[in-house]
Amino acid sequence: MKQVTKINVLKKFTGIAWVEQAIANLDLILLDHSHCELKAASTALNFMFRYPAHTRLVRELTRLAQEELEHYELVNQWLERRGIPLAPLNAPPYGATLKAQMRRQEPDRLLDSLLIASLIEARSHERLGLLAAHCPDPELAKFYHGLMASEARHYGVYWLLADSYFDRDVLEKRLDELAIVESEILVNLYPEPRVHS
Amino acid sequence: MKQVTKINVLKKFTGIAWVEQAIANLDLILLDHSHCELKAASTALNFMFRYPAHTRLVRELTRLAQEELEHYELVNQWLERRGIPLAPLNAPPYGATLKAQMRRQEPDRLLDSLLIASLIEARSHERLGLLAAHCPDPELAKFYHGLMASEARHYGVYWLLADSYFDRDVLEKRLDELAIVESEILVNLYPEPRVHS
Repeated sequence: MKQVTKINVLKKFTGIAWVEQAIANLDLILLDHSHCELKAASTALNFMFRYPAHTRLVRELTRLAQEELEHYELVNQWLERRGIPLAPLNAPPYGATLKAQMRRQEPDRLLDSLLIASLIEARSHERLGLLAAHCPDPELAKFYHGLMASEARHYGVYWLLADSYFDRDVLEKRLDELAIVESEILVNLYPEPRVHS
Repeated sequence: MKQVTKINVLKKFTGIAWVEQAIANLDLILLDHSHCELKAASTALNFMFRYPAHTRLVRELTRLAQEELEHYELVNQWLERRGIPLAPLNAPPYGATLKAQMRRQEPDRLLDSLLIASLIEARSHERLGLLAAHCPDPELAKFYHGLMASEARHYGVYWLLADSYFDRDVLEKRLDELAIVESEILVNLYPEPRVHS
């Protein structure tokens, strides 16, 4: 198995404006986080439906989906503890804008969707880290810190899957392009507080 | 919590023709079973996306989805053990025909989709039981037997959710109608061996 050579794929780090927005709206961030975990599980399942003969992908994303559902459950327990009712919440443009970058023809589609999933996990990892560092509730901060390791691993799972199905230089070139878009989406803070606002 | 008053909702039991077809094509049944478990997990997630504020539904279906993914993993391990590669497989008309019965307006949609999910689990339970009883490989038979209890519980989860959101008599009347359709779909054996052929 080839090694991950660079973990810091994000082109721009999150600025203080997002941190301030998030910390001032922690309940909303928690609710959005719940939706993010469910979407992450669903993303993994969609890969498994689309590529049912890709044994390694199926095996690794089964485990990843299970972890996302565990996190979803944990975040929902936090919501309950803080008396925040489960509720619908509209998504920021982040996910849809990134997915619009996906080329539709195979095998490009597989490469792009793995790299986009990887970037989303990398950004989640960074932002949960910021919440862990800045959250005023020490128990909640500890919870975020605990989730960070998984997000980093999930980033790695998608990257390694891309690396196992595609040439390294093709992967890196495309990841570079997508990472630029990913950072550009986040340059202007989305007015509604979200994990990916 | 109200009690489940009847577990045997199926209008017609599976005949010997399906058992013979399944036992003669166990590898294909296993592969289809893998797809069924993934679809079952996905069905649970779809409920959670559609009804994000239904706390009880979210909580119970999170657990159910986790179990379906565990089963998916176990079935895939059986495929590996028997040297059957993961592969795409077209679905029999069963699921789509049942879902076509679903009324589109809420709250009918929620009732119908819960009852349809319940019926599918009840049928899976019955058929895994038949595989457990007739499968010539004692280890595989034991595996099917082990899954049966979960399928019965899953049937109960969907029924109890329906029962918690709707009046019992409304539920029973609609379940009766849907159960008739469910059994009718299976009257003529689908030529391709499937869990729901």
